[in-house]
Amino acid sequence: MHRTKIRIAEGILDANDTIARANRDDFDEHGVVVVNVMSAPGAGKTTLLERVVRDLDDVRIGVLEGDVQGSFDADRLASLHVPVTQINTDPGFGGECHLDANMVRAALPSIPLDEIDLLLIENVGNLVCPAEFRIGEDRRVMVSSVTEGEDKPLKYPLMFRTCELVLINKIDLLPHLDFDVDKLLYNLDAVHPGVERMLVSARTGEGVAEWRDWLAGVVERGVAPA
Amino acid sequence: MHRTKIRIAEGILDANDTIARANRDDFDEHGVVVVNVMSAPGAGKTTLLERVVRDLDDVRIGVLEGDVQGSFDADRLASLHVPVTQINTDPGFGGECHLDANMVRAALPSIPLDEIDLLLIENVGNLVCPAEFRIGEDRRVMVSSVTEGEDKPLKYPLMFRTCELVLINKIDLLPHLDFDVDKLLYNLDAVHPGVERMLVSARTGEGVAEWRDWLAGVVERGVAPA
Repeated sequence: MHRTKIRIAEGILDANDTIARANRDDFDEHGVVVVNVMSAPGAGKTTLLERVVRDLDDVRIGVLEGDVQGSFDADRLASLHVPVTQINTDPGFGGECHLDANMVRAALPSIPLDEIDLLLIENVGNLVCPAEFRIGEDRRVMVSSVTEGEDKPLKYPLMFRTCELVLINKIDLLPHLDFDVDKLLYNLDAVHPGVERMLVSARTGEGVAEWRDWLAGVVERGVAPA
Repeated sequence: MHRTKIRIAEGILDANDTIARANRDDFDEHGVVVVNVMSAPGAGKTTLLERVVRDLDDVRIGVLEGDVQGSFDADRLASLHVPVTQINTDPGFGGECHLDANMVRAALPSIPLDEIDLLLIENVGNLVCPAEFRIGEDRRVMVSSVTEGEDKPLKYPLMFRTCELVLINKIDLLPHLDFDVDKLLYNLDAVHPGVERMLVSARTGEGVAEWRDWLAGVVERGVAPA
């Protein structure tokens, strides 16, 4: 049974990559930089996105929200007056635990690509499968909350290995946790040596300016001249 | 593509249920009660299991650990001198994000079923797919950390709906969070009205006695007479 499943998996992943390239071409054509934001449930993706949507005044931002069900995060971000498109993964493979390239492709007509410079995609909260599926993004960012423990890079190595930036969130809680930041960084370097990382608190705003500047830099470098 | 995927999914889930029933029969035959423990990454499953393994003196416990990679949790629990079996889901569908019945079936010969009364299965940290796959368990318990926010039942309804007990963990952090317990309970009742729930702190031990007694009760009622 396993062998069959692996063969199906390879077929699905190949098809996914083809569609992801088509998405990427469409984004490039419109000069839109795309950042795929991933994390475990409740690590603070939405709040970190709210922070930068508020702060990045001179960048035209759009948001694509991936959730199994509901539109809670989409509603929060839409209230900041940016175009938000919702994908519910519920009708997929028993409630898909990730976005795939085809879902993003189906959402493209609902995204005003001519009116934005940066598309922030909030993936489904999950540390496994989202890392497997390219969706046409330029950059991958993952959020790791200090409440989750120092061992997460070792337990979910692909997720930590696949991203260009790791946001270590909820550092305002450090005084109240048995959490060793150095141990997390050691484990992070074990699976993805030297990957860019920032210590942030979505709640207090600490470190958020750096995260905002990183996004602004990606947009500045990434958008093709009009 | 979606329609094909759904058909494959139904086939996989049907096959899974058949194997889960076979697992269940084997557990019943040996008088072993099986509890499947699920949560998001870092919600505190392992620490909550450590607590009860230490406290349940008169119950013979075995542990089955599901992880994408590594044996960190298995090592922690093995140090408490209970038989621990590790399943790594890495060779599966691009690193499986859940345990399925077939993985548990493959592990059965490594589990000393004649020497235990209770098998605690720690599933892969994920709020989506583990809820889809029965593995032969008698009871499902999920752990929801208060650091994850009050909206999780609405965003991952199947997970909250499928379990018989919800452990609301890390309540020692409540004074440091913007978290409304009543709002969580309201959302929980919206998706699974009246489901049994306990407020616990794996770290301080608060509420752990209740969780231990729940397990002891399940074993007492669930084991067929020898």
